[in-house]
Amino acid sequence: MVQEVVTMEGHLIDSDILRKAFGRVVEEGGQFEVLEFNVGKRNEDPSFVRLEISAPTPEILDRISEGLNYLGASSMVGDARFAPAEQDGILPDEFYSTTNFDTFVRVDGKRQSALDQKMDAALVVRGGAPRCVKQAQVKKGEQVLLRGPGVRVKPPERSRGATVFGFMSNDISAETNKGIVIAGIARAMREAREAREKIVLVAGPAIVHSGGDLALARLVKAGWIDVILTGNAFATHDLEKSILKTSLGVCQLSGRAVEGGNRNHLFAINAVNRAGGIGGAVDSGLVTSGVMYEAVKKGVKLVLAGSIRDDGPLKDVITDTVAAQKAYVEALQGAGLCMMLASALHSIAVGNLLPARVRTVCVDMSESVPVKLSNRGTMQAIGLVTDVGFFLERLEAELG
Amino acid sequence: MVQEVVTMEGHLIDSDILRKAFGRVVEEGGQFEVLEFNVGKRNEDPSFVRLEISAPTPEILDRISEGLNYLGASSMVGDARFAPAEQDGILPDEFYSTTNFDTFVRVDGKRQSALDQKMDAALVVRGGAPRCVKQAQVKKGEQVLLRGPGVRVKPPERSRGATVFGFMSNDISAETNKGIVIAGIARAMREAREAREKIVLVAGPAIVHSGGDLALARLVKAGWIDVILTGNAFATHDLEKSILKTSLGVCQLSGRAVEGGNRNHLFAINAVNRAGGIGGAVDSGLVTSGVMYEAVKKGVKLVLAGSIRDDGPLKDVITDTVAAQKAYVEALQGAGLCMMLASALHSIAVGNLLPARVRTVCVDMSESVPVKLSNRGTMQAIGLVTDVGFFLERLEAELG
Amino acid sequence: MVQEVVTMEGHLIDSDILRKAFGRVVEEGGQFEVLEFNVGKRNEDPSFVRLEISAPTPEILDRISEGLNYLGASSMVGDARFAPAEQDGILPDEFYSTTNFDTFVRVDGKRQSALDQKMDAALVVRGGAPRCVKQAQVKKGEQVLLRGPGVRVKPPERSRGATVFGFMSNDISAETNKGIVIAGIARAMREAREAREKIVLVAGPAIVHSGGDLALARLVKAGWIDVILTGNAFATHDLEKSILKTSLGVCQLSGRAVEGGNRNHLFAINAVNRAGGIGGAVDSGLVTSGVMYEAVKKGVKLVLAGSIRDDGPLKDVITDTVAAQKAYVEALQGAGLCMMLASALHSIAVGNLLPARVRTVCVDMSESVPVKLSNRGTMQAIGLVTDVGFFLERLEAELG
Amino acid sequence: MVQEVVTMEGHLIDSDILRKAFGRVVEEGGQFEVLEFNVGKRNEDPSFVRLEISAPTPEILDRISEGLNYLGASSMVGDARFAPAEQDGILPDEFYSTTNFDTFVRVDGKRQSALDQKMDAALVVRGGAPRCVKQAQVKKGEQVLLRGPGVRVKPPERSRGATVFGFMSNDISAETNKGIVIAGIARAMREAREAREKIVLVAGPAIVHSGGDLALARLVKAGWIDVILTGNAFATHDLEKSILKTSLGVCQLSGRAVEGGNRNHLFAINAVNRAGGIGGAVDSGLVTSGVMYEAVKKGVKLVLAGSIRDDGPLKDVITDTVAAQKAYVEALQGAGLCMMLASALHSIAVGNLLPARVRTVCVDMSESVPVKLSNRGTMQAIGLVTDVGFFLERLEAELG
Repeated sequence: MVQEVVTMEGHLIDSDILRKAFGRVVEEGGQFEVLEFNVGKRNEDPSFVRLEISAPTPEILDRISEGLNYLGASSMVGDARFAPAEQDGILPDEFYSTTNFDTFVRVDGKRQSALDQKMDAALVVRGGAPRCVKQAQVKKGEQVLLRGPGVRVKPPERSRGATVFGFMSNDISAETNKGIVIAGIARAMREAREAREKIVLVAGPAIVHSGGDLALARLVKAGWIDVILTGNAFATHDLEKSILKTSLGVCQLSGRAVEGGNRNHLFAINAVNRAGGIGGAVDSGLVTSGVMYEAVKKGVKLVLAGSIRDDGPLKDVITDTVAAQKAYVEALQGAGLCMMLASALHSIAVGNLLPARVRTVCVDMSESVPVKLSNRGTMQAIGLVTDVGFFLERLEAELG
Repeated sequence: MVQEVVTMEGHLIDSDILRKAFGRVVEEGGQFEVLEFNVGKRNEDPSFVRLEISAPTPEILDRISEGLNYLGASSMVGDARFAPAEQDGILPDEFYSTTNFDTFVRVDGKRQSALDQKMDAALVVRGGAPRCVKQAQVKKGEQVLLRGPGVRVKPPERSRGATVFGFMSNDISAETNKGIVIAGIARAMREAREAREKIVLVAGPAIVHSGGDLALARLVKAGWIDVILTGNAFATHDLEKSILKTSLGVCQLSGRAVEGGNRNHLFAINAVNRAGGIGGAVDSGLVTSGVMYEAVKKGVKLVLAGSIRDDGPLKDVITDTVAAQKAYVEALQGAGLCMMLASALHSIAVGNLLPARVRTVCVDMSESVPVKLSNRGTMQAIGLVTDVGFFLERLEAELG
Repeated sequence: MVQEVVTMEGHLIDSDILRKAFGRVVEEGGQFEVLEFNVGKRNEDPSFVRLEISAPTPEILDRISEGLNYLGASSMVGDARFAPAEQDGILPDEFYSTTNFDTFVRVDGKRQSALDQKMDAALVVRGGAPRCVKQAQVKKGEQVLLRGPGVRVKPPERSRGATVFGFMSNDISAETNKGIVIAGIARAMREAREAREKIVLVAGPAIVHSGGDLALARLVKAGWIDVILTGNAFATHDLEKSILKTSLGVCQLSGRAVEGGNRNHLFAINAVNRAGGIGGAVDSGLVTSGVMYEAVKKGVKLVLAGSIRDDGPLKDVITDTVAAQKAYVEALQGAGLCMMLASALHSIAVGNLLPARVRTVCVDMSESVPVKLSNRGTMQAIGLVTDVGFFLERLEAELG
Repeated sequence: MVQEVVTMEGHLIDSDILRKAFGRVVEEGGQFEVLEFNVGKRNEDPSFVRLEISAPTPEILDRISEGLNYLGASSMVGDARFAPAEQDGILPDEFYSTTNFDTFVRVDGKRQSALDQKMDAALVVRGGAPRCVKQAQVKKGEQVLLRGPGVRVKPPERSRGATVFGFMSNDISAETNKGIVIAGIARAMREAREAREKIVLVAGPAIVHSGGDLALARLVKAGWIDVILTGNAFATHDLEKSILKTSLGVCQLSGRAVEGGNRNHLFAINAVNRAGGIGGAVDSGLVTSGVMYEAVKKGVKLVLAGSIRDDGPLKDVITDTVAAQKAYVEALQGAGLCMMLASALHSIAVGNLLPARVRTVCVDMSESVPVKLSNRGTMQAIGLVTDVGFFLERLEAELG
């Protein structure tokens, strides 16, 4: 049996950290003894625990120790260790892989906050500070943090104060009273406005199919959205609706697409690209309404990421996925609230790039999208299973 | 090789009958030759086809023949054959099993329409006429139609005239423009009103969870609903909301149920049962709002069928499922339009009892409910995948 | 501000009780102060907490107090209070509504365990002991437990020992490695065998559709199943397959049902009922294979509950849902493990009747069934999203 | 009223073309008269129809005419019209947008087959022949086919001969007997082998999660797969499993991912990229098993398309989505059968690039993926709702 003592601090109960830590020890085949535990006396007080971990082999102890580290545990007495990247995009094998939790690195006895926090990145020293950098963008020779001592994460704490974001996370249901949740989201949007945090929208084409684009365009016009992260499809559907006035590709009786209707999609792309892209299409008067129109008029930051299933694409689309990822990262700077609407692909992509501290809501007709998002680590996301058109109309009413 | 000649008549193309007939012959291992085919010249004209079917064995020919019969084919020259039920609920083995299509039986050279058309029933001579009777309700000695000659069905014809019900059926998608479809349903409701056909509502508890009960109560009050077929859960949720004013079982922050919250459900049942049931609860002033309240006030026909997962149940619930099925059948007399909202169990149950000619819409958050409904034979149902609360609010706006 | 002191004991961290308790206080508008907290030192040790709850009004304090009580908190110094049932099936308004957690009632200063633990029942003194009785079955004048002092629940504790049931609960995903989970279930079945606990199967018709009936019949024959709780549909599909040898109602090319195919369903019911029911059909040689056959041969307890969507039904079906619920309850006595396979209706029904301490797994193709089950309070159920045919074949291989 | 006469030829009934044509006329507000109709006498004979279409305005007639054209109707007496592309990627506004049906263009009185058939492309004269070219790849000055006369499509005909692909399409259900369908797919694979057509696999990561990778690797080794179209995630999961031997990122008790487990994913990418990519990783002995390993050993064509949600990515990934689309197109040359397994993104992408004549099966745990695929025009795809691991094991057994 080998032993190690670790400590954890924070809202260990409310944030479900202690339970996960206990579970991890046992799952990996170890045992624990609680040496000390001071629970926060009141809602706002942090707790503190000192655990002795025992394991049958050093390998298992290491694995437990690393697991607890990802939950915020610290055994760190020493400084963090670094090694240089072998080549561009090639890390030393012992690299530390980040979470989306706020992370601290001990360098020369001093604790430094990691910048650009996001999950599944390397931690690289750039400009004198530790920074989360996606694997592919690490340069040869840059100092890469190794796993082991000197690194600590701070899992997001569910505030004991009462907000919809504190209680809902991970509890996905199609049967909640959505009005209450949408009211809570509207409150959070107002708070983000006051705190001068950015409100980010991740948008999928079902927004247009469901007719929610009208409410969304008004929300954009009213200044509620700072950043739109999406792909070619949503933008094109929205532009097509403005350019062709009537939605020719849809049967007016059944509301469904008809054979040959996709020509309108290509037509819209062609017309917008001829005008030089979305901005040009707005300036030239080709596009006079819709979400894209309002976004351009309002100066909303718009990033379109390419996908292999795209038609066209629009000139504005960043077809290189690594470049698109970078552009998303940049646009997410300063985000305080993120609404992911009806797009599995872009929602998961953005979840990968967001610090866990950003309040996040994922709206989809299917339980499987928020479930996947949470399984992939974006555990802060509230899942709201509903029609996105309905969501947007209600949200507008709440904010109006 | 054995042969047989059959004829079919009607909107064989529009109603997709001829394609299914061709498919059935080939699937079963036979071949066909089209001896004669007159296609309807214009939208409203019927077509006529005479087919020669060949099969390697008489058994296969019989199977094909029976299959085509279910699609409306007729080889009938002779009269229908009957045999007496052996005991109460026990049919002769050669019994004919009904579809939900209009059915005609040739007796003494004369064609008679089957009454009480519904699927998966026996056809029994009662009061001198052929009548669809569920197996369990056939009495010993009653004359039961046998499969073979003298019976013909008429599949529902999708009118070439343009209505949402003609085109949408079987095409289920979460991505249609629901506004168009809902507008079409509102039109059909107005037509049903004018034709003095009943409008039937099949209701599930998600109507209350989603907040759609408010719009529904107004629709009931405005006289849009003639019959409500549901179970214990929907009625209780609705009554609980009226009795306890605030929904105590739901957290006002998260919109989710809380531990112990189900007590309110039991409390409502207890209070209503003490008052003698739903009618008594309305009369005594215990219940003063909601769908049940408006239904009682308006004299809407209300049938509550029991289920093994019920709490309580309410006194109004028919706990015997065979008796409940009978009560549903009776309430469905004269139905012209059926809306199935957020209830898999009751929707499938009602689909089993409805003639295919009744326009039917199935609204659910999950594609799987309308898919199941269609797979079980209620092929006339339009599937609308959306939030039922949204559906009801929109429907009210369209009808208002 | 009003105050109250409550205590809780058990695996408060592992079982996620303390977090829920803190959450409940804050959600309802109260505050708490931790007066004392002793955390269990090792895996197997219980924890203890003493909390002071403050609330702005006595009503809120009562609500918090009742909520905490449902989480196992106790402020009980006094004895439980009782009042007589007003009429058959009518409770006093202050009745206590049960959970599925083990419950203790203090009577004359002594703690008594509630019998027949199940959720959403009244607690009635029968035969000198407190017993969970469904509302409808309470008799006039029986002493009914009231909410308030003298009652305590013990939430199921997730053992820190390592089993698949300890960790998986509430974590539903279509993307787990199902082999590992199925192996864990097989282990739990062996343990249940050794502990002489009953293994209960809740079965839906998709078992037959998916072809899993073959593996299931072998499992029944091998003695792995003690009780089968199902409805008319599963039994009939299984019997039809045995009686008609080939599945005539299914196209052998496409695997799908064909028009008229449902006749086989009715034929099977008719033949079995003529033989006097399932037992008679086996005895007479009509049914010679399948799950029902093996169940009869093995003396497996079989309960068929009626539903309004049933054809027939089979003579064995209990058509009264209240009677069926009673029969389910009786059959569940002594259950140690419950497998719910592909049946939303019966799974939720059984969940309503099971103590939370029974290890439960819910297998379905759709995430929505285990999600609903958990939302309705059967939180102990592991959700496994997979093809039930595949599940059964794997399970058989693991047990073989 | 304006009129036009069109003709259609082929399996107009079996392939459901005539029904769609009638529907389209009426939906758009027109009327039709059947001037002549010769139905195919036997299974293998084509039918012929001559329709007179009437419409209230020339615009509506044009729209109907174009709609019918997409269903294979021809009014073509004249030659096709062309106009030059204005710039690279900018088409003349009247461009013809392709379907995935075989397409013929009349040039100088002669009918020419379009090459590289795929949907939503322009038809451009290249190398003297009409060729389907995605919008973005049309070069300035190339002659682009305009809509109007001289173009005709041939919708895929569902063979009246009996195969699983003929009957299943568009009929998606979780409740079919999958064994029958999988046997049919195995037959089609054998036929493709004999016809020397390529078998294409579109692969998603759930193949690995579900444990189906073992069966798939054996299928690849046995030579059943010619082309694998996938993305970074599937390849990495497969490589990770080979490199790290045990799946360290997954809890061995629960089968679920654990905190920090994603490091293994990044580690695998890092190690493979250091070795120069997948081929290098196999050559160097780093990767010694799995689907990627067998694919390299067998010389299977492997194309990895980038997505914005990728980690890494692997060096083999084509990060530019337009380039990746081109590479997919190239790899699809000669495809006779396409299996889309558990990947919504890549399945829809490939559906966009496949001629409708390629037999296609889409396997997913959720009905929504095959529904989407069909709604987006890949109507030939059979939807099979099941666990992909189960599918692969069964398929291997059928082929073994």
